[in-house]
Amino acid sequence: MRTQVGIIGAGPAGLLLSHLLHLRGISSVVLETRDREYVERRVRAGVLEQGTVDVLNEAGVGHRMRREGLPHHGIELRFGGAGHRIAFERLVPGRSITVYGQQEVVKDLIAARLAADGEVLFEVSDVVPDGFETDKPAISFTRADGERVRLDCDVIAGCDGFHGVSRPAIPPGVLSVFERDYPFAWLGVLAQVPPSAEELIYAQTDRGFALHSMRSPTISRFYLQVPPDEPVANWPDERIWAELRTRLETVPGFALTTGPIIEKSVTPMRSFVAEPMRCGRLYLAGDAAHIVPPTGAKGLNLAVADVRLLTEALAAWYATGSTDLLDGYSDTCLRRVWRAQHFSWWMTTLLHTFDSDDAYGRRLQRSYLDYVTSSDAAAATLAENYVGLPFEDVPADIPAVPPAFPEGHRP
Amino acid sequence: MRTQVGIIGAGPAGLLLSHLLHLRGISSVVLETRDREYVERRVRAGVLEQGTVDVLNEAGVGHRMRREGLPHHGIELRFGGAGHRIAFERLVPGRSITVYGQQEVVKDLIAARLAADGEVLFEVSDVVPDGFETDKPAISFTRADGERVRLDCDVIAGCDGFHGVSRPAIPPGVLSVFERDYPFAWLGVLAQVPPSAEELIYAQTDRGFALHSMRSPTISRFYLQVPPDEPVANWPDERIWAELRTRLETVPGFALTTGPIIEKSVTPMRSFVAEPMRCGRLYLAGDAAHIVPPTGAKGLNLAVADVRLLTEALAAWYATGSTDLLDGYSDTCLRRVWRAQHFSWWMTTLLHTFDSDDAYGRRLQRSYLDYVTSSDAAAATLAENYVGLPFEDVPADIPAVPPAFPEGHRP
Repeated sequence: MRTQVGIIGAGPAGLLLSHLLHLRGISSVVLETRDREYVERRVRAGVLEQGTVDVLNEAGVGHRMRREGLPHHGIELRFGGAGHRIAFERLVPGRSITVYGQQEVVKDLIAARLAADGEVLFEVSDVVPDGFETDKPAISFTRADGERVRLDCDVIAGCDGFHGVSRPAIPPGVLSVFERDYPFAWLGVLAQVPPSAEELIYAQTDRGFALHSMRSPTISRFYLQVPPDEPVANWPDERIWAELRTRLETVPGFALTTGPIIEKSVTPMRSFVAEPMRCGRLYLAGDAAHIVPPTGAKGLNLAVADVRLLTEALAAWYATGSTDLLDGYSDTCLRRVWRAQHFSWWMTTLLHTFDSDDAYGRRLQRSYLDYVTSSDAAAATLAENYVGLPFEDVPADIPAVPPAFPEGHRP
Repeated sequence: MRTQVGIIGAGPAGLLLSHLLHLRGISSVVLETRDREYVERRVRAGVLEQGTVDVLNEAGVGHRMRREGLPHHGIELRFGGAGHRIAFERLVPGRSITVYGQQEVVKDLIAARLAADGEVLFEVSDVVPDGFETDKPAISFTRADGERVRLDCDVIAGCDGFHGVSRPAIPPGVLSVFERDYPFAWLGVLAQVPPSAEELIYAQTDRGFALHSMRSPTISRFYLQVPPDEPVANWPDERIWAELRTRLETVPGFALTTGPIIEKSVTPMRSFVAEPMRCGRLYLAGDAAHIVPPTGAKGLNLAVADVRLLTEALAAWYATGSTDLLDGYSDTCLRRVWRAQHFSWWMTTLLHTFDSDDAYGRRLQRSYLDYVTSSDAAAATLAENYVGLPFEDVPADIPAVPPAFPEGHRP
């Protein structure tokens, strides 16, 4: 079996890469250990940056997102008994975010790949990337039917997330790892209730952080700061609603709409970067190379930026033989990655309650919140990072991805 | 002996308060334990915010400052082998800083007080503020000639710095204290050499922070991050110059001008706030109530903001009997104080090297520096804090301090 680009992982990074490559006439095969239903239901991020929306639209997979996604032009920071809006339309004119679940993006991408006869192999196992330090890389894996297969390719893209096989396949000593754990986790809750406000609410309280978010006009998404390794069993529905009320119903006139909880899970908070994002002909993209705490909503968006650049680099290589963009891939990605790492750390420390903080630290935090919500310059730093800094990574002489398949006219 | 306002401390806070009160027709006596020569030579801060300059000018004591002070319209952040200018004229149009030594401000204020027959008593001892929880406060002290004196007054202003007697005179339980120590100190150096660049240079290096500053066209001021409690004896002149070179000569074309060092001292780095800034008829102002690490150049400027407000509050009280401004003094000051506390902490952590930082922390710091020097919004947060946020604390119906004594026509 042979393809140009062997892609490990059918999350948003791997699927989008496969689709973008297809639009540039480059073949790929996507290998995924889970089944299709699992990846299409996996609840993860839900905030798309302007640039991510643009990439999806330009790639012709934005049809449903434009219909069902919720454009947001601001977020609220809530603390000290008052809400403070960070108004994107005023602070970063023309840029906004779109609330649209990651699993919806995945569904749209899988549909687009299959519609174009793309090869996405689900339920494979024992995936082994190999030979990427030579010019003949290959991926061995076992198909769902039990057959062991060798996929020869020109390059391998490791898009298989933090716990995937790609990064660990890189020999010791190649990667430098930078990481930080946080002394808390997020309890994420999906509830079958309409959102209680039109926009996201980031609430800082003495009892910890809470986030009011949404997935659709009928599905709300909430997060609560909880101790690390907190068992979900500690959080029966009534306790969740009571705690959400305590942390969110802190301003006059705001009442939380409650109802059936349809999913809950605990997510650890971690910062992680592996450098470089390449070893020979193996390129890492998305969570395989870097993790951010979800506070800044940057994880999915970084993955999109990575594969967008990787597509351009591979297209340039196939078209001209030049390895300039491929050689610059890691450094270029890492500039954006570190900006997002910092922003995610910043949002996290700004909004969470640290047990280790002394009285001075708590006053500092409050002073910073007061500043961010009263200075236009400070609010603009939050806004410009939140909606996503512009891509600056593709030289002007590389043409942008053309909208090869206009909406509604997919092949 | 009797006056309206008994002022403890002849630093910039106490002297300026005395002068501003005089301009409003309110009498005061300033008590200082040191001699005049000492306070006029005490080398401290040297960066005046726009608002501080305005207050000094409006008070008629800005004559020499306007002649000898150095207006600066930007600072440089130097790291990673490059310099990055924070351009005030573009980021905060119309606002700038003036480099003018604190001891020069003190000289100007003492001259103004004595020219107006103001009472500034140097070399007093055993100063005891008393009765400030009644409506008959008094300050007992021993005059230079050995006579014990009781100064009856309407209110006491504690302007005697962090180590003064005013704050400790407040009964236990009244004040809440917030503080943080930093794991390093500043070695401050005064050298008889022309500045090596026109503007201040804040340098972040793996070996620690360094600051290139100046006091005049012929006197340079430098700071080096050193371990806490570092003996000055560890730093012979040659070592100082060598270390300054290593930390500052990191960009092409920059060469440090070296020469005779005329003073050196080690300053601890501390953040401290005592709340409230009042107990009965004792009002604390400046370092007596709050300390910041010097990185953001905020200490002197906060003191000026405090006494400016205290003057307005006392003037309103004497004129109308209203205690509204006096009652709001502490809260109003503390809003500015905490903004400056945060900014000073922020500048300090942005620019210093923390031994405790892991590899992740060092990358975060670099990412933040890259951001502050590449995003206009982020640069503007530094600039607007550095030049000083506007005073927002005096209601519009209180008249501003009139320029009672136009320059050159002092009584």
